[in-house]
Amino acid sequence: MGEFELIRRFFASAACAAGGEGIALGIGDDCALLQLPAGEQLAVSTDTLVAGVHFPDDADPFLLGHRALAVSASDLAAMGGKPIAFTLALTLPAARADWLDGFARGLCAMASGCGIGLVGGDTTRGPLSLTLTVFGRVPVGQALTRAGARPGDLLCVGGSLGDGGGALPLVLGELKHNGPEADYLLQRYWAPQPQLALGQALRGRATAALDISDGLLADCGHIAAASGVALWVDADKLPLSAALEGLFSSEFARNCALSGGDDYRLAFTLPASELAAILADWPEVAVIGRVEVGQGVHLLDAAGIELQPPALGYQHFGSQGD
Amino acid sequence: MGEFELIRRFFASAACAAGGEGIALGIGDDCALLQLPAGEQLAVSTDTLVAGVHFPDDADPFLLGHRALAVSASDLAAMGGKPIAFTLALTLPAARADWLDGFARGLCAMASGCGIGLVGGDTTRGPLSLTLTVFGRVPVGQALTRAGARPGDLLCVGGSLGDGGGALPLVLGELKHNGPEADYLLQRYWAPQPQLALGQALRGRATAALDISDGLLADCGHIAAASGVALWVDADKLPLSAALEGLFSSEFARNCALSGGDDYRLAFTLPASELAAILADWPEVAVIGRVEVGQGVHLLDAAGIELQPPALGYQHFGSQGD
Repeated sequence: MGEFELIRRFFASAACAAGGEGIALGIGDDCALLQLPAGEQLAVSTDTLVAGVHFPDDADPFLLGHRALAVSASDLAAMGGKPIAFTLALTLPAARADWLDGFARGLCAMASGCGIGLVGGDTTRGPLSLTLTVFGRVPVGQALTRAGARPGDLLCVGGSLGDGGGALPLVLGELKHNGPEADYLLQRYWAPQPQLALGQALRGRATAALDISDGLLADCGHIAAASGVALWVDADKLPLSAALEGLFSSEFARNCALSGGDDYRLAFTLPASELAAILADWPEVAVIGRVEVGQGVHLLDAAGIELQPPALGYQHFGSQGD
Repeated sequence: MGEFELIRRFFASAACAAGGEGIALGIGDDCALLQLPAGEQLAVSTDTLVAGVHFPDDADPFLLGHRALAVSASDLAAMGGKPIAFTLALTLPAARADWLDGFARGLCAMASGCGIGLVGGDTTRGPLSLTLTVFGRVPVGQALTRAGARPGDLLCVGGSLGDGGGALPLVLGELKHNGPEADYLLQRYWAPQPQLALGQALRGRATAALDISDGLLADCGHIAAASGVALWVDADKLPLSAALEGLFSSEFARNCALSGGDDYRLAFTLPASELAAILADWPEVAVIGRVEVGQGVHLLDAAGIELQPPALGYQHFGSQGD
């Protein structure tokens, strides 16, 4: 038995391979089998992370496993999906037991937190990269797409923005800083929490939704294009964490929030009549703008004057890395 | 818009992105949405192909696209699944229009032949590799697993064996040969035809099945282990193509059939009472052995004497490459 066959067995016996609701057959046959309740659809998303492009080659394997699944599960959250299962295609230069152990622990910790089970995949030799495909379920007709925003809706986000972008100089080692602010930002970068419960709560309420991976302005552009509307963003209403504001200038912090990416908060459009119900359960939700007739994304200052969008900040190892 | 965003648009508009039966939402949102008829399950499989490991770096992109999807769809065939959709995670060192055009044409030709639609994925910069995740559907309880073979069943394969292994010296350029035999073997290597219709016909008939990717003996070992039985293979009953026998010694040809891999024929166990019905529609199916009480895979010569399994042949760029 080759070392890569051993790796396959290692993952097959990992805690996160435990069958969850909807998994009829897990790891070990030609295919896994998933079962959906009547009246539900399957939501599917695939993401690849490449060493040297999306994360540093020497990234901590525990954190990498954590982050890889969080980033993928965030796409399920953005559709209002309930997680079922995922597959992992792992390409590795060599089988190193300590690396694999750390990676599997990180992956399984996030899987356990999300209620999602590993059902298969592939392990191959080559330059380090990961491709995760995640599966969730959503009642027919209730998936949150990017296409339903209507003029008059509010533009909301699920929590503080810019932490992912603010963490990048720390992740890259360009900024040396210890302390609670740096710890918080690194935690937000390596272990973003996919907003799964919020996504499910938005079903039947939000008119459009996505998760912020490319940066608020770029992602709002996707909603504006898919819905055929304009989005107006109030720059002074962006929710910023105390850590981001404590460590950086207000201009840099704001630019991280607008263009930094890697936040994995949900952005969504909501009829005003639905806001109170959402805020009651999700006080961290912030209204940051509104939907209007028109097209594109527009940024306003506190006086209501339109601003130029900021130049993109750090891009290495962010989701914008191609 | 970056060059990789252009690639995403290129695939989104490709013919193989056309929605098929069961695709409720295709490329362009956070997730695709798949819908299953009542009483059916979803079959899922993920495979990665890495340049320099599973295929030569300079592989023809049309053939590579063809082969990548065929290899993945073969896993659906092995479960008795009917194809619905697939995702493509493509990692590329650079965006080259001619390469992408050829790759997409090969991929879409195979997709069209299999009736499977591209519903999403990811395009990233990095060392060339492909991860495909395929989705099919199968009635609840009718998926062909590896676990049901029973003593007394016949061991069958869906057609000639060894062509994939015989093609490898040609693929690698180690053997220079022109002519119809070489053309046939290269065609079998680069464009194996997943036995989807046969797999669906075997539902409710075969007791165990898989597709031969690692080599007949290795793959039969998976059935023997999962079913808790012994498989006895008659070495003189292996179906060999005229091309394989024409180009190589009978010993090399037989070893390719036993251990060469990359054949993507189905191997399955079948109660003898089901054989006539299968042969009526699938005359290329061959009975190559039988299931007995015991464990492991055993090889017999024409006189019924047990043989030692051959040493593995070419392994570069085969499915055995880790």
